[in-house]
Amino acid sequence: MHHIDAFRIACSGPGDTSGLENLLRSGAIVAEDIVAVMGKTEGNGCVNDFTREYATRALAQCLATWLRCTPADVEQRVAFVMSGGTEGVLSPHWTVFTRKPAQPRAPGMGKRMSIGIAFTRDFFPEEIGRMAQVLATQEAVAQAMHDGGITALEDVHFVQIKCPLLTSAKIADAQARGASVVTHDTYESMAYSRGASSLGVALATQEVPVTAVDDEAILQRWDLFSAVASASSGIEIDHNVVIVLGMSERASSNLAIAHAVMVDAIDAKAIQSAIAALPSTAGQLDCIVNVFAKTEASPDGLVRGQRHTMLVDSDIHSTRHARAVTGAVVASIAGHGMVYVSGGAEHQGPAGGGPVAVVARLTSEGDAA
Amino acid sequence: MHHIDAFRIACSGPGDTSGLENLLRSGAIVAEDIVAVMGKTEGNGCVNDFTREYATRALAQCLATWLRCTPADVEQRVAFVMSGGTEGVLSPHWTVFTRKPAQPRAPGMGKRMSIGIAFTRDFFPEEIGRMAQVLATQEAVAQAMHDGGITALEDVHFVQIKCPLLTSAKIADAQARGASVVTHDTYESMAYSRGASSLGVALATQEVPVTAVDDEAILQRWDLFSAVASASSGIEIDHNVVIVLGMSERASSNLAIAHAVMVDAIDAKAIQSAIAALPSTAGQLDCIVNVFAKTEASPDGLVRGQRHTMLVDSDIHSTRHARAVTGAVVASIAGHGMVYVSGGAEHQGPAGGGPVAVVARLTSEGDAA
Amino acid sequence: MHHIDAFRIACSGPGDTSGLENLLRSGAIVAEDIVAVMGKTEGNGCVNDFTREYATRALAQCLATWLRCTPADVEQRVAFVMSGGTEGVLSPHWTVFTRKPAQPRAPGMGKRMSIGIAFTRDFFPEEIGRMAQVLATQEAVAQAMHDGGITALEDVHFVQIKCPLLTSAKIADAQARGASVVTHDTYESMAYSRGASSLGVALATQEVPVTAVDDEAILQRWDLFSAVASASSGIEIDHNVVIVLGMSERASSNLAIAHAVMVDAIDAKAIQSAIAALPSTAGQLDCIVNVFAKTEASPDGLVRGQRHTMLVDSDIHSTRHARAVTGAVVASIAGHGMVYVSGGAEHQGPAGGGPVAVVARLTSEGDAA
Amino acid sequence: MHHIDAFRIACSGPGDTSGLENLLRSGAIVAEDIVAVMGKTEGNGCVNDFTREYATRALAQCLATWLRCTPADVEQRVAFVMSGGTEGVLSPHWTVFTRKPAQPRAPGMGKRMSIGIAFTRDFFPEEIGRMAQVLATQEAVAQAMHDGGITALEDVHFVQIKCPLLTSAKIADAQARGASVVTHDTYESMAYSRGASSLGVALATQEVPVTAVDDEAILQRWDLFSAVASASSGIEIDHNVVIVLGMSERASSNLAIAHAVMVDAIDAKAIQSAIAALPSTAGQLDCIVNVFAKTEASPDGLVRGQRHTMLVDSDIHSTRHARAVTGAVVASIAGHGMVYVSGGAEHQGPAGGGPVAVVARLTSEGDAA
Repeated sequence: MHHIDAFRIACSGPGDTSGLENLLRSGAIVAEDIVAVMGKTEGNGCVNDFTREYATRALAQCLATWLRCTPADVEQRVAFVMSGGTEGVLSPHWTVFTRKPAQPRAPGMGKRMSIGIAFTRDFFPEEIGRMAQVLATQEAVAQAMHDGGITALEDVHFVQIKCPLLTSAKIADAQARGASVVTHDTYESMAYSRGASSLGVALATQEVPVTAVDDEAILQRWDLFSAVASASSGIEIDHNVVIVLGMSERASSNLAIAHAVMVDAIDAKAIQSAIAALPSTAGQLDCIVNVFAKTEASPDGLVRGQRHTMLVDSDIHSTRHARAVTGAVVASIAGHGMVYVSGGAEHQGPAGGGPVAVVARLTSEGDAA
Repeated sequence: MHHIDAFRIACSGPGDTSGLENLLRSGAIVAEDIVAVMGKTEGNGCVNDFTREYATRALAQCLATWLRCTPADVEQRVAFVMSGGTEGVLSPHWTVFTRKPAQPRAPGMGKRMSIGIAFTRDFFPEEIGRMAQVLATQEAVAQAMHDGGITALEDVHFVQIKCPLLTSAKIADAQARGASVVTHDTYESMAYSRGASSLGVALATQEVPVTAVDDEAILQRWDLFSAVASASSGIEIDHNVVIVLGMSERASSNLAIAHAVMVDAIDAKAIQSAIAALPSTAGQLDCIVNVFAKTEASPDGLVRGQRHTMLVDSDIHSTRHARAVTGAVVASIAGHGMVYVSGGAEHQGPAGGGPVAVVARLTSEGDAA
Repeated sequence: MHHIDAFRIACSGPGDTSGLENLLRSGAIVAEDIVAVMGKTEGNGCVNDFTREYATRALAQCLATWLRCTPADVEQRVAFVMSGGTEGVLSPHWTVFTRKPAQPRAPGMGKRMSIGIAFTRDFFPEEIGRMAQVLATQEAVAQAMHDGGITALEDVHFVQIKCPLLTSAKIADAQARGASVVTHDTYESMAYSRGASSLGVALATQEVPVTAVDDEAILQRWDLFSAVASASSGIEIDHNVVIVLGMSERASSNLAIAHAVMVDAIDAKAIQSAIAALPSTAGQLDCIVNVFAKTEASPDGLVRGQRHTMLVDSDIHSTRHARAVTGAVVASIAGHGMVYVSGGAEHQGPAGGGPVAVVARLTSEGDAA
Repeated sequence: MHHIDAFRIACSGPGDTSGLENLLRSGAIVAEDIVAVMGKTEGNGCVNDFTREYATRALAQCLATWLRCTPADVEQRVAFVMSGGTEGVLSPHWTVFTRKPAQPRAPGMGKRMSIGIAFTRDFFPEEIGRMAQVLATQEAVAQAMHDGGITALEDVHFVQIKCPLLTSAKIADAQARGASVVTHDTYESMAYSRGASSLGVALATQEVPVTAVDDEAILQRWDLFSAVASASSGIEIDHNVVIVLGMSERASSNLAIAHAVMVDAIDAKAIQSAIAALPSTAGQLDCIVNVFAKTEASPDGLVRGQRHTMLVDSDIHSTRHARAVTGAVVASIAGHGMVYVSGGAEHQGPAGGGPVAVVARLTSEGDAA
């Protein structure tokens, strides 16, 4: 039995761990209980965004002191997922998830939010954006569900993946070994990695039949997607990190999670319906711990039938535009911009749209179902 | 008595006048009636955005053929205001306003939307962002109100200004004459020009007392603002262009306009209240001709109490972020991104916020008041 | 027999044709003689750079008045090649080439610079970056050589291509017809189009055997390249424009041209050797009419063994970096930045390098060989 | 008596300390001897460039382990100056300076390179870019000269300053205390901070009379400058860090340093003359340890009489352009891009130009004078 909690913590920069330090010092968070951290950092969210790596290092360094181990040890036990890019009103912050053993629950308590994590092996550069990454992710999602005590597929509400990208050095390494990479464009490799990882989620959740997915389907078959996958690429890792958020009878938190699918980047109704899908005592704005959403510039160049210019803008990458857009719409509903909106939603929701999940606190214990 | 109409026209690029050509050819628009064009073009909306100038030239060239005059003649009779920047879901387009003499109206018809335009003289570089620009704008707003038959100050709902900026060449010109310019930063000069112009509107509408405004107040006294001013700077002009949109008993259009003030860049309620303030038969989404809004990154670095990073982002200027944000919120309400959202709202609405106006078509003739 | 001349003209913006107007008015340039214009315009040089299209339109409009024809007619007779991007010290300008019938030359005059132009047909989106574009370009180069009276392959010193790119709209068009495009990334399509065009030049000049080139070779076989090809992509055209600059016994200009190959983006020696290869009376800095060069970020991520970051920079595209670099090196030798340096040198010179050509004026008539 | 050494170390990213670790492990560098590190990191070099802070933290963390102290202790004893921005061919790296007590030198050895460091107090936000910063810097330069045993003003060849900038938070802090800051534009504050610091150097070196400098002179009186000042702003500090590099009879290194002043950003001759000013055995390219230069976009909008577009480019800040330019010219002479070129040369060399210094290794001991 797990007891889960979640804390949203503001920061003044990617290296600012003072908010977390304060909660550790006050005892509100026990370092040993931390299982995952999902952050929004204020870099460009693209290839050369070192704020993700910097934040991960700063947090691992901070926790290493509390856990009396090395930062590398911390990264073995905690799943860090930093999503770069706080365009528009998005506000840099971290969501810290804790998990500790709990007493058996009272009968009839209903399902509560749980969390599980897993890691894949390191990938060769030539595996990124291809079936090797798809299949390893599929397996890791299953492991993470098991880790979190989330048994039914319909109880999976958000699967966060952190996945690697190709750099000039990695491409050269592959070529030196006679291997060919999926793309020579480092920015585009981020999309391939997110796409392959998300199809791995879709296989694990059985949203997509295993026969439909092959190398050719990745970034081509937009009809294949997961409604709960959220993948972020980063320069700082070589493997996939998997975090599964879902409802479980083995969890005793007073948290609940629900999700919906945005059909496009300005789908306010989907965001509202995700909130409405929460148990009633959690569906108030001030109960929301965080909103997690993925977004992208619609690949057909249109939003609601009107031309957008995000894909032809050579000054600002489309993922930056998309985060500003959906971040603003979520903020206009949630009441502020300290929410998790991540860009690049390949095979994560339908083309041009993306998944949105809401984690909220139940105000009375007897409420969730 | 004026008869007013307004047409929103999509374009495939800043030089694409085919949509306008089609309406001219079909007779839906008569070239002689065109009094103003407000456009969103797909440049960066900052100093080196030549899409505004290019669009103005292309439209003037197109109309010159229909009007059998030179493009320069066209620019003398039509007020062109191009606002650069279609970040996020904003969709490039033009709103063409026409005006022609009308028969006396039926008694009891109530007020309808009207439009008036005016131009200031050319400014010296050293006048930009200072009282000379404020006072010339004040005078031009009064002229434009008169031109449009808008008599009461409370009937003014949107005052669009196009104003110049400082370039390296203009700064050098001033210095050669021993004059000092308000700033040497060309991007910042756009803010000064917008700010001075907007305070000019505020004086004309008596929203701000004449004694409160001096050179020092510009970009400093954020408590001084107009709720109806909208100013865009551009490299393509040396004077101010003024367009006043308001309600008038001397107009016989079947259009109405209403406005509200957004307190911040994600103020969905203000947008909805502007729509609600329309006469009932115009307050439907499919009656909306266009939404006009100004936006900015809150100068205190916070939106609803949470830190934003728009003002410290040296890769993307804050006006670009702000347009993406408010453009997305407006689009999530209006149903699409072909709306006019312009960045840089100095003295246009409160700090961090901005005005929003909605032009809509009355579905039955007897409705407006 | 052709008499050729070339004029470098500064501009204050992409729509500023006053410099050309002045030369037309003074009689220094006769409008009927203009055969080609190669320009550097101050946009981003990437997909959404409308300064190229704007400059082309402004110049065509200007010439239409002088030639008493339509702008479209002008574009049929004059080869316009606008290269966007004046990063660093590069200074926006146009080089106008004129050609008129000449008297038979004195015996023993030696070769002089000539110019020839040609156009391919419009390409379907799915042909861009593939063999159809290669072969059409090969044919057009041969036509342009013939047009310019340049008979020997070794007399070809610079072949400038303007070629189309893929937009969201073009990609959608291809897909609607069931055709697949070479890439869905609009920025990357610029590279494919330049690469295919340049291999077309290499076939025409016999620098590469016809058997070596197929769809797979494009952007892969960096050992295949032309030492005289220079290709620029632009959103403003659907076909390829070809300009061949070379030496000819059928030309009577007092201009000469020579070229060299830069092995990397900072190859000052190559620039100096191109100057040194000119006839002696032309090899002085003040005789130089213009320097034409192509450059790129080395695809292996290294320049002279040291890591560069141009290919992993998601804020500034690598072509922009590369133009700033080679523009600065050329300027440090030529004495100023009003030179033609264009980015994206796929199959134009070796990987990481590019061609450089110098056009200079012979100071005494009896000099060239 | 000091023994000085300097090591240029490549890195694969701002957090990559492996190169330094290797030299520490091999004994080539002794951690206790490290007195200063000057680095080029691969961020945007502007306000939100966290690579400088990240690199400083990573290096301090690395050295803390070797020195058995905290990272904060390391930052007290070592002067870290990280300059962001490796545009074009610039290659990220660190130059590590060591200093240790040395035996008395042989008579007639001549002057050798020495290094001294100092720190100012923390500045209030309202002091940045004003006389308080000027005067504190002046004093710190004198301290650093004393620290390095550099006695004659003509022996000072390069004074590196790291100085703070204004953020939204700092501006708000000042305003809360009723203090006014020099500018509300965070990017512009970088220029003010560099300018004030450089005038502080100019006072210390007596290049500028004390009576000439006041608040008004900063960023206005371009005729006031230091030929040896190099200032970089960064978000990561609140005080100024000062490093003086010069020649000294109290130093026994086999290093020499010389400098020259570039009159513009492409002044290849100045770079060559700085190399030529070295003692003969050091003036070979393969003896160069590093080249240190400052650069800027000429504030009059011209380079060698031709218009540049760096100051009107709202997509790429002018400091980024300038680094690409001068970095390329230095690299074309030095043979590669692993050199220290930093942007923003206000009061550092003449307007549009900047200082350049070369540190080189003497190949025989008896050489320097």
